[in-house]
Amino acid sequence: MTSAPQQPIDADALRGFAAAVFARAGMRAPDAATVAEVLVWANLRGMDSHGVMRIPRYVELIQAGDMNPAPNIRVTTETPASVLIDADRAAGPVAMSAAMEHAVAKARGAGIGLALVRATTHTAAVGYYTTKAAEAGMAGIAISASWPNMAYHGARAAGASTNPISIAVPGGKAPIVLDMGTGIVSIGKLMQARKTGQPIPPGWALDAAGNPTTDPKTAQIPLPLGGAKGSGLSLMIELITSLIVANPLLAETLERSAEGKRHRQNGAVIAIDIARYCDMAVFRREVERLIKSLKALPRDPDIAEILLPGERGNKIRAQRARDGIKLPPPILAELQALADKLGVEMVATR
Amino acid sequence: MTSAPQQPIDADALRGFAAAVFARAGMRAPDAATVAEVLVWANLRGMDSHGVMRIPRYVELIQAGDMNPAPNIRVTTETPASVLIDADRAAGPVAMSAAMEHAVAKARGAGIGLALVRATTHTAAVGYYTTKAAEAGMAGIAISASWPNMAYHGARAAGASTNPISIAVPGGKAPIVLDMGTGIVSIGKLMQARKTGQPIPPGWALDAAGNPTTDPKTAQIPLPLGGAKGSGLSLMIELITSLIVANPLLAETLERSAEGKRHRQNGAVIAIDIARYCDMAVFRREVERLIKSLKALPRDPDIAEILLPGERGNKIRAQRARDGIKLPPPILAELQALADKLGVEMVATR
Repeated sequence: MTSAPQQPIDADALRGFAAAVFARAGMRAPDAATVAEVLVWANLRGMDSHGVMRIPRYVELIQAGDMNPAPNIRVTTETPASVLIDADRAAGPVAMSAAMEHAVAKARGAGIGLALVRATTHTAAVGYYTTKAAEAGMAGIAISASWPNMAYHGARAAGASTNPISIAVPGGKAPIVLDMGTGIVSIGKLMQARKTGQPIPPGWALDAAGNPTTDPKTAQIPLPLGGAKGSGLSLMIELITSLIVANPLLAETLERSAEGKRHRQNGAVIAIDIARYCDMAVFRREVERLIKSLKALPRDPDIAEILLPGERGNKIRAQRARDGIKLPPPILAELQALADKLGVEMVATR
Repeated sequence: MTSAPQQPIDADALRGFAAAVFARAGMRAPDAATVAEVLVWANLRGMDSHGVMRIPRYVELIQAGDMNPAPNIRVTTETPASVLIDADRAAGPVAMSAAMEHAVAKARGAGIGLALVRATTHTAAVGYYTTKAAEAGMAGIAISASWPNMAYHGARAAGASTNPISIAVPGGKAPIVLDMGTGIVSIGKLMQARKTGQPIPPGWALDAAGNPTTDPKTAQIPLPLGGAKGSGLSLMIELITSLIVANPLLAETLERSAEGKRHRQNGAVIAIDIARYCDMAVFRREVERLIKSLKALPRDPDIAEILLPGERGNKIRAQRARDGIKLPPPILAELQALADKLGVEMVATR
């Protein structure tokens, strides 16, 4: 590892590197570019846990046979307003991007469009797909379901998942994009606390044995957002994705089946064609009007600024697009090792 | 007030009484019956804050001209998979029930159906409408938007709303019905704490001046569920209902306009025709399979039972359908006074 620590990398260079790795791992060029684009999008917006640090894991998933680098993605059911896509274990960004394109196309015809996604893998930052809908003038909704990694309310074990939900709409300047997990804290934040050694607040997590803990070294299973609300929302996401597409995730893992030990995800996206129901210019103006009212509210002195969903990410993106993306040395080392192994040229720092 | 305290009332009698009151206040008989049905449904399921205690307020809203007892509900936009309904200030249960019927009908044709509701009033317990979708074999989603009554994250004032979200699916035995507000605590629970005088936990509420408080006497503005997540979810509900139907609620009230001082709500419901995508019998079986897995998880000793969304309400309903509904004496007194005023026969206790 000769890269200087904290040397920034240009987003374009990082995209190119990621795409080269995925192509070498067997993905078709357009798919490799899509996965690279979605991961680097997360880095640009400060969601580093969903960024290029996932590259080695994605390659592992391909080598283990859980992620299909050359999937045959098929529409298996089509209705006037929806499709069900069998993703054939495609990388999440490939399957979810295709799904949102279908949903937007259906919404153009029918007002609302739904795309259900069966058998994909890590869906990455779901806010990416809803942002695409918003950029097409639509309201976008995206959810994804994964294996049990979060406590179900009332249980002292993982029984639900930190399943994310994203909702986005166009704004007057930038889209408003909510992207939230259903846990009170993300797995990424627990991992970060483990590294820094800082105690975590009570009510955040259980240890591997299911006991509540504030010890960052043993905290492992996040608790649901607001107790029954967070685990209820998470469970409904499993029910309206995994069970409708006939690819159950939670039950398989809880019953310890062979299938339940594999990396599997499902998802769903919805697009709503706003302009069918109202004047789009008025809609955009009203978003800005509401933002102005919210920003003018008396501020909590502990908070630097009243923010809209996605606003923090927009600011970080502006900064990182200009100044480059800094990756922690251990991540750079992992990427270097992977580059060496695959015979891909390592991404250059600035 | 001669009614003995805590004498139970039969659900049928309560429905008949509520319908008679609403008919006397100007509603057409089928609409009066619908509102009565939705309110008593909430009482039966233990959600008393959304039950018949609302009757006097509904009558006030009619008398103030904010709720239209004889609305002309019209579909103003129709697409292959959706409708936009102008509710003409109809009682929420009338508008939202009509909306879910439209959404279910659209979903039968198109796979997914959306009904947007413009200009309704108090939407009552939104789980009622999604339960109807589930009973029709569909997944149901319902959201509603109201005036600012909850803190926006980072602000020390009401800027968002406790906007609820409900998601329901059919089960093997009963539907699974999530029905949650986006606040960390409901306004109803804060009102209850005020009555009992019991201190509320830190992080639940602000007082009228916007200061954090644990004093039940002054707590007034609930904080959002999980900070930015809850107020973000609430805000997105305003954006995808009120702004799409061109009837903004938050901005009007925050700007203190005349319109913003009125009681106004908007809503949206979605139905997804599950049987179009999978075998319904398998779906129902998989719901029961997952329930079994979740119930078998090691239990938090502080929790009596691991519950599914809606399960507690199902149990209360079974008990109250059998034993009757008990209303607190102050509520009975209010209903008696209203009955006297309108010349309607007071509901009989058992």
